Amino acid sequence: MKIDGVPYRSVWVDREDGWSVRIFDQTKLPWAIDILRLADEDQAAHAIRSMQTRGAPLIGAVAAYGVALAMRRDASTAHLDSVVDMLGKTRPTAINLRWALDRMRAALHNMAPADRVAAAYAEAAAICDDDVETCRKIGEHGLPLLQEIAARKAPGERVNVLTHCNAGWLATVDYGTALSPIFQAHDAGLKVHVWVDETRPRNQGAALTAWELGKHGVPHTVVADNAGGHLMQHGEVDIVIVGTDRVTRQGDVANKIGTYLKALAARDNGVPFWVALPHSTLDMRVRDGVAEIPIEERAEAEVTELTGRTADGRIETVRVVAEGSPAANPAFDVTPARLVTGLITERGRTEASEAGLAALYPDKA
Amino acid sequence: MKIDGVPYRSVWVDREDGWSVRIFDQTKLPWAIDILRLADEDQAAHAIRSMQTRGAPLIGAVAAYGVALAMRRDASTAHLDSVVDMLGKTRPTAINLRWALDRMRAALHNMAPADRVAAAYAEAAAICDDDVETCRKIGEHGLPLLQEIAARKAPGERVNVLTHCNAGWLATVDYGTALSPIFQAHDAGLKVHVWVDETRPRNQGAALTAWELGKHGVPHTVVADNAGGHLMQHGEVDIVIVGTDRVTRQGDVANKIGTYLKALAARDNGVPFWVALPHSTLDMRVRDGVAEIPIEERAEAEVTELTGRTADGRIETVRVVAEGSPAANPAFDVTPARLVTGLITERGRTEASEAGLAALYPDKA
Repeated sequence: MKIDGVPYRSVWVDREDGWSVRIFDQTKLPWAIDILRLADEDQAAHAIRSMQTRGAPLIGAVAAYGVALAMRRDASTAHLDSVVDMLGKTRPTAINLRWALDRMRAALHNMAPADRVAAAYAEAAAICDDDVETCRKIGEHGLPLLQEIAARKAPGERVNVLTHCNAGWLATVDYGTALSPIFQAHDAGLKVHVWVDETRPRNQGAALTAWELGKHGVPHTVVADNAGGHLMQHGEVDIVIVGTDRVTRQGDVANKIGTYLKALAARDNGVPFWVALPHSTLDMRVRDGVAEIPIEERAEAEVTELTGRTADGRIETVRVVAEGSPAANPAFDVTPARLVTGLITERGRTEASEAGLAALYPDKA
Repeated sequence: MKIDGVPYRSVWVDREDGWSVRIFDQTKLPWAIDILRLADEDQAAHAIRSMQTRGAPLIGAVAAYGVALAMRRDASTAHLDSVVDMLGKTRPTAINLRWALDRMRAALHNMAPADRVAAAYAEAAAICDDDVETCRKIGEHGLPLLQEIAARKAPGERVNVLTHCNAGWLATVDYGTALSPIFQAHDAGLKVHVWVDETRPRNQGAALTAWELGKHGVPHTVVADNAGGHLMQHGEVDIVIVGTDRVTRQGDVANKIGTYLKALAARDNGVPFWVALPHSTLDMRVRDGVAEIPIEERAEAEVTELTGRTADGRIETVRVVAEGSPAANPAFDVTPARLVTGLITERGRTEASEAGLAALYPDKA
């Protein structure tokens, strides 16, 4: 996607040195476009852990490059195993991380160490290219949902989509998952408007999704995470589309904390609730998402403190919770399949069920 | 309630001059205890509109004193009518405002103007005293709910209550509504722990409820508004208790935006969802809350900006939404009666239905 006319992916190999890995520091957005340079696997791990880079598909891609960086230092099998293990522990909920690391290990394991550096960069690049194509196709398969809503409306009436967190191009290598159909709809001339959940505690909606949509010219309005139910009660939401960090065999959906509440409101108001995902987000080894998906508990300070820009342009971090009061910070929740209208994947749309997933992914079943 | 050992109400007549009205500037809490002096009805109106004073029962009490202040300047019937009208328009959703103003007008209307100042102060004081006693009784009638949960638990296991927004003593004249049973339970030695919803966009949970509970020594944990559903899915919430700004004849509940989402999660997980209210919050003229209760739309800046304290103690306001992105700010939502386990009032507990309310309030039916 473009920032002020310049095309970017969210992770790339430095064009000058040809080996270091570049990412946006997403903790600085939207106030500064700060491009980080990752020179080894520890820097890659830190970037993932600290959420300088984030989004289920993207952390898979960055972890893949982390393996490539590690191979530059030491291409032994022991090091390959240990770096895959180390990077796999950086964040627990998104399955894409493990998927990408498994793919890297499979590509490199039975290979002479001398060949591993070049092969690792090639495999990481392939993971990125695949993700871009996958996300483009997710957009194609999601687009008809928005077109159908537009067709039922009076000419000129806007299609209102609600989304939670950031599942845009910053969460993937390019295009995004949940936002991909929205970008395509907008580019096709559909009058689409997005309700952007702020997404506390890290404000990925207010900071990243709003910024992405704004840069692309897509009409949108930021709302507190509390507002979605009220908007749905009053007919202001035609469809909810969110991304996901892991979808189980039976179609349960782990995603940013608060997604489950929006799914409940969608069901209560007859609003379709769709989840957009690439194949790498499927975890067929897990059935019951609520019971089995590990939910990351992140630092208390993410709830008690907030960073933003003052009127005179300084970046400040302020405490917003009464002094002495503790906070808890579960980062994800699980939306049971029964609340999900359907899944949008690069292979098409399907229902969120074992049968639905098996029909689309017989190779994974 | 006490702040550092000193007893306070949330509104009182100045002890020195005997006529000006004192309130806490709740927009400054918890960072500063700033006591404002209201000298006329316009200052009272501004305090209500700007949410320096807030909470459905409390804005009724402050409006009542606003009428008393107005009578000092001009005790004519025309001025009485106009000030009641003006104060009634300061905020649209909480019905207590209209209730208190109707009570003031009824008390003063058929009285010689010369008698109105003294009578207005007496009536406002009676409204406050009634509210204190009402809230104390709400605590008594809510307490058994917490005791029953404790009785079902292993000895020493905590009772987990989730609350949204601030329905503590700062939202009333004293004791609070939703927090009144919690304070009583804690004082009675029950091991109670409160999940405090941050309550975006104005953070009344993180700033006020957490502060109140902290000052009283009640164990609590602040969570993002997004977290409640996840906590309920994992058995971490035994009961939800919230306050309300208006309850309709059929038991629909207007309360801070986001309450409806928590009620949906409570139902989905079999968690009891109770609403605490004084009689002054009942609006028997309205039946369908979703269709009929006016929902206040507040300023965009309440969503796009946040105020807090820096590590070195400065109070700063920061923008947290990407530059150029608009925001919407509906301040309340309506939870349909079907999602409400029951109502806790000063007369006892009842179901959220026309029959339930008629049984408890035959004088209002």
